[in-house]
Amino acid sequence: MTDRLEVLPIHGIGEVTAGDDLAEMITSAAPWLADGDILVVTSKIVSKAEGRLVEVPADGPEREEARQHALAGETARVVARRGPTTIVQTHHGFVMAAAGIDASNVDKTHLVLLPEDPDASARELRAGLRDRGLDVAVIISDTMGRAWRNGLTDVALGAAGIEALLDHRGKLDPYGNELSLTQMAVVDELAAAAELVKGKTGRVPVAVVRGYPALITGDGPGVSVLIRDAASDMFGLGTAEARAEGLRAAATLPEPPHTGGRSRGETPLDGAPPAGPLAVDPAAAARALRTLGDLLTSSVLLADGIRLTPTGDGPAALIRTGAEAHRLRAALAAEGVRTEAVIDDEGVTLIYIDGAPE
Amino acid sequence: MTDRLEVLPIHGIGEVTAGDDLAEMITSAAPWLADGDILVVTSKIVSKAEGRLVEVPADGPEREEARQHALAGETARVVARRGPTTIVQTHHGFVMAAAGIDASNVDKTHLVLLPEDPDASARELRAGLRDRGLDVAVIISDTMGRAWRNGLTDVALGAAGIEALLDHRGKLDPYGNELSLTQMAVVDELAAAAELVKGKTGRVPVAVVRGYPALITGDGPGVSVLIRDAASDMFGLGTAEARAEGLRAAATLPEPPHTGGRSRGETPLDGAPPAGPLAVDPAAAARALRTLGDLLTSSVLLADGIRLTPTGDGPAALIRTGAEAHRLRAALAAEGVRTEAVIDDEGVTLIYIDGAPE
Repeated sequence: MTDRLEVLPIHGIGEVTAGDDLAEMITSAAPWLADGDILVVTSKIVSKAEGRLVEVPADGPEREEARQHALAGETARVVARRGPTTIVQTHHGFVMAAAGIDASNVDKTHLVLLPEDPDASARELRAGLRDRGLDVAVIISDTMGRAWRNGLTDVALGAAGIEALLDHRGKLDPYGNELSLTQMAVVDELAAAAELVKGKTGRVPVAVVRGYPALITGDGPGVSVLIRDAASDMFGLGTAEARAEGLRAAATLPEPPHTGGRSRGETPLDGAPPAGPLAVDPAAAARALRTLGDLLTSSVLLADGIRLTPTGDGPAALIRTGAEAHRLRAALAAEGVRTEAVIDDEGVTLIYIDGAPE
Repeated sequence: MTDRLEVLPIHGIGEVTAGDDLAEMITSAAPWLADGDILVVTSKIVSKAEGRLVEVPADGPEREEARQHALAGETARVVARRGPTTIVQTHHGFVMAAAGIDASNVDKTHLVLLPEDPDASARELRAGLRDRGLDVAVIISDTMGRAWRNGLTDVALGAAGIEALLDHRGKLDPYGNELSLTQMAVVDELAAAAELVKGKTGRVPVAVVRGYPALITGDGPGVSVLIRDAASDMFGLGTAEARAEGLRAAATLPEPPHTGGRSRGETPLDGAPPAGPLAVDPAAAARALRTLGDLLTSSVLLADGIRLTPTGDGPAALIRTGAEAHRLRAALAAEGVRTEAVIDDEGVTLIYIDGAPE
């Protein structure tokens, strides 16, 4: 919290090409910079200075091919797709459309990739500015979409000289409530504030936030602390992709162990050992049977499983029993209940792998 | 884009209670407000003034019960759960943890709910300030988490007197590239900038952004335009929830129609009519069979389906054929290929519902 912020554009930074000294260009354009300032530098000029460009045909179908090839190179993992839009996780860990590859503000025969290591780039630029007598923080920013909100905002890709998170935990509000779960991603808010004076036509690639007393002595951990790890990511796959994964898992039952009564989001076939005793929802078997609706098979609930037998005679009835047994196994798996299937000449016994539901 | 922004806290707004006139409190605390200013008002004081509080026990297990009850009332749809964290979509359409219900900055016997209609609240406050001679925009802000990034930032819940999105589409960059897909959610960026001077202990619930020339004559469409509709939401369910839905869908095949070659994220059993001709991935059948690995059943690819017959003799072999037929149907469904199953005394024929893969 502070008393008054100013957000100031830096005009006059010209075109940036590979090998350019950004610290020099910035201080030349803004001799008014002062200790304590926070510089928000658009990642594009960092990429240009670092030569993080890829050559592509100016037009034609080969251009799109080249773009897809570049995207594949930048992609660690595809998160979701819909039509022409691909949301991926980059090697850095950022989740963004098209891995942040940008065709704007560059000539048509090039695409701009994200900096390879934005935190390192931020540290390098902070050091370069320190060499010129300035103790300033550096945030490297880029434009990103959001999962549930239209429109884009600028966020931080890299940072040096400032902590990414401002931790309010442990403080008290006026009612004596202890604030919890309140870590503000201030570098993202600073990036957003800076964007308001930048515009999108490239002529203001750097802005300064003045009056926010947040500089630290060292470089700090950078923006990497803002990247959610897989364990805390509830949206690691798009809904459609995850749903297809569930269907695929049904094809290859039994399910690996889950925590609680719900399927986990991780790769279902990783063979990881159970995390601990499985807490099976007591009503799971009943819910699973209700999911199926009317069965052509006779089902009997056992202490440790479910017995299914054909209701009619003949081969077709036996085949139907096998199909319905598998339906039921999928319905149980959806409730977090794993089963083994034992087939005999009279029917199928589904045995709960992790013991009976409690 | 503008030349210089200031972000100014408003000090001295005291405790807010139901029925308070926020326009009066704000202008009293900040007689320096001027036309063109953008006020960013923390939603909590709007909720307090509107009486959007719910009474709860100060402690004990009944407190958590009451909190859960309040959460249920504010929830239109559960998006994802993990441990104590529930991400829901509120009636407004916002996707946020605990529906934005807040226990901080209020006495222990109350919880604060989000305003019922933040855009309406913004319009009302703008009108109240206009009555006091001020032409200012009003943004109502709140703190939210993000899907793939740690930490929280402030975003806009409601707005009046300013467009939520600044549309750069159609503009040209210096290279003559036409900017596309670049709609900036400026009200979210303004909310983030304002938060930097507010802090979290409630003493600065309103901040002013000065120097951003974005006021419009009317109230504008508000923040509702920022809420993604279901059709464009690729993350409408958490990964674990969607995966369980896929397993559940496997239990109740056949699949409803999908767009493209991928399962859709919407409720699979809504019975909606097909959106149009289905584009089936040509390699889908082969991929599905590969997913299953070794089958104990004999499979033959037909022009319009797959024929499965037992490889051994006896009832158990027939049951196994039924189970494997269902596994295969789930694997095909995961690839977007819908099937009907026709069971006879010799085996199972899976018929592609939407025609053969192209």
